[in-house]
Amino acid sequence: MIVRYERNGKVKHGWMVEEDQKVRVIEGDIYKLQGTKPIMTGLELPLSEVNLLAPCTPSKVVCIGLNYYDHAEEMGIEAPAEPLMFMKPSTTVVGPGQPIVYPKLTQQLHYEGELAVVIKKQAYQVKASEAEDFILGYTCAIDVTARDLQHQDGQWTRSKSFDTFCPLGPAIAPKLDDQDLRIVTRVNGEVRQDGSTKQMIFPVPQLIEAITAVMTLLPGDVILTGTPVGVGELQPGDEISVSIEGIGTLTTHVVTHS
Amino acid sequence: MIVRYERNGKVKHGWMVEEDQKVRVIEGDIYKLQGTKPIMTGLELPLSEVNLLAPCTPSKVVCIGLNYYDHAEEMGIEAPAEPLMFMKPSTTVVGPGQPIVYPKLTQQLHYEGELAVVIKKQAYQVKASEAEDFILGYTCAIDVTARDLQHQDGQWTRSKSFDTFCPLGPAIAPKLDDQDLRIVTRVNGEVRQDGSTKQMIFPVPQLIEAITAVMTLLPGDVILTGTPVGVGELQPGDEISVSIEGIGTLTTHVVTHS
Repeated sequence: MIVRYERNGKVKHGWMVEEDQKVRVIEGDIYKLQGTKPIMTGLELPLSEVNLLAPCTPSKVVCIGLNYYDHAEEMGIEAPAEPLMFMKPSTTVVGPGQPIVYPKLTQQLHYEGELAVVIKKQAYQVKASEAEDFILGYTCAIDVTARDLQHQDGQWTRSKSFDTFCPLGPAIAPKLDDQDLRIVTRVNGEVRQDGSTKQMIFPVPQLIEAITAVMTLLPGDVILTGTPVGVGELQPGDEISVSIEGIGTLTTHVVTHS
Repeated sequence: MIVRYERNGKVKHGWMVEEDQKVRVIEGDIYKLQGTKPIMTGLELPLSEVNLLAPCTPSKVVCIGLNYYDHAEEMGIEAPAEPLMFMKPSTTVVGPGQPIVYPKLTQQLHYEGELAVVIKKQAYQVKASEAEDFILGYTCAIDVTARDLQHQDGQWTRSKSFDTFCPLGPAIAPKLDDQDLRIVTRVNGEVRQDGSTKQMIFPVPQLIEAITAVMTLLPGDVILTGTPVGVGELQPGDEISVSIEGIGTLTTHVVTHS
């Protein structure tokens, strides 16, 4: 799986081999990978010696609201007839282990565990049937949300756009069948969300068709595909993790604003 | 005033002198300009020999909804108690003369002429009293909107995010008193909006404080400050211009999707 890491002040991409707890250094542009065959430099590093970063640096994060029936129900909102889009700016993105900062402006910070799709190449007006060609892979995400501001504003942008509100990682799994992946969110070790991507109202290829009917997606751009039922509050000090079958576990924690 | 232009396949920044219809080539990073004193290379080009582009390349365009009372009234929405934020992705940005593409998905394309603020340096948790230091300058913008989709979706993202939906330009005026600038939108030469930035509910420094309380703004990021009363429809073939006192006129036109 593809990771991005920092070591001795330099940022590179690597191929993580979890069994060996190693990272193989990748040569060249990960957005030009053919299938699952990156070019390796031959260099290997112990996972413990690198600092994992968000696995990509999106120009934009396009999010889909209310894409699981049970979650729409818990929010008290009717499930939408078409994919409902909103965005998080690139400044929300943090990597595994980089904390979520609890903003001063909210009293109700919520997690939403989500499957994230990472775009491989420029995508505009892509049909669902061809969407797979435009996917570099999949990673875990948390759509952190200031729920009180979301309700107060009506528009969701402010409540979703605080710095650190989009943890991504730990790695990009390039080949996955995205139709039925288990997704589990835990807070301090307790299971809070336990769903499957098969419950999505609009599956990934349809999301790509709907989004690229509007805007061009660029290499490294990210789609957050919606959250299953079971969203809830986070407090400073909490540890939160999102585990997705075939990808791994993204773990981070919440800190008080300085 | 600062322009960005393409000539012989190369993209550079320049200082436009409108009286002479010339562009002086700027050396170095425009985000490190001191006041209105860019470093000139001594090279001058006739304005007719360059292709003006959007004057900056924002990582994000943060927009403020309903920031003029009269416009809130024409939309039938109560003016907000705090700045109401939404975003347009960087893929919406086009330069002067680059057409607005009328999307297949809408039957009601609207213009909204707006004052755009261009950010000079990284800005986070900036107080209104210090906001001026973070402004590179001002330019004209059109917040193009698929009004039918805006009403249909509830969330404004999709209706505001089609490629070409954020014309910017023609130039960045570095020093302007943003408190009382006349802003006029014309469609095919007819005046449709004629307002002043003094009618803003939340003036620019307060917008910067409110936005940077949430997210970090980066050099080149753009704030669209809201539109005065008088929004209305555009049709393929229409010419639209936005003129702002002290900046100049952004002119573009609407084409049918291919």
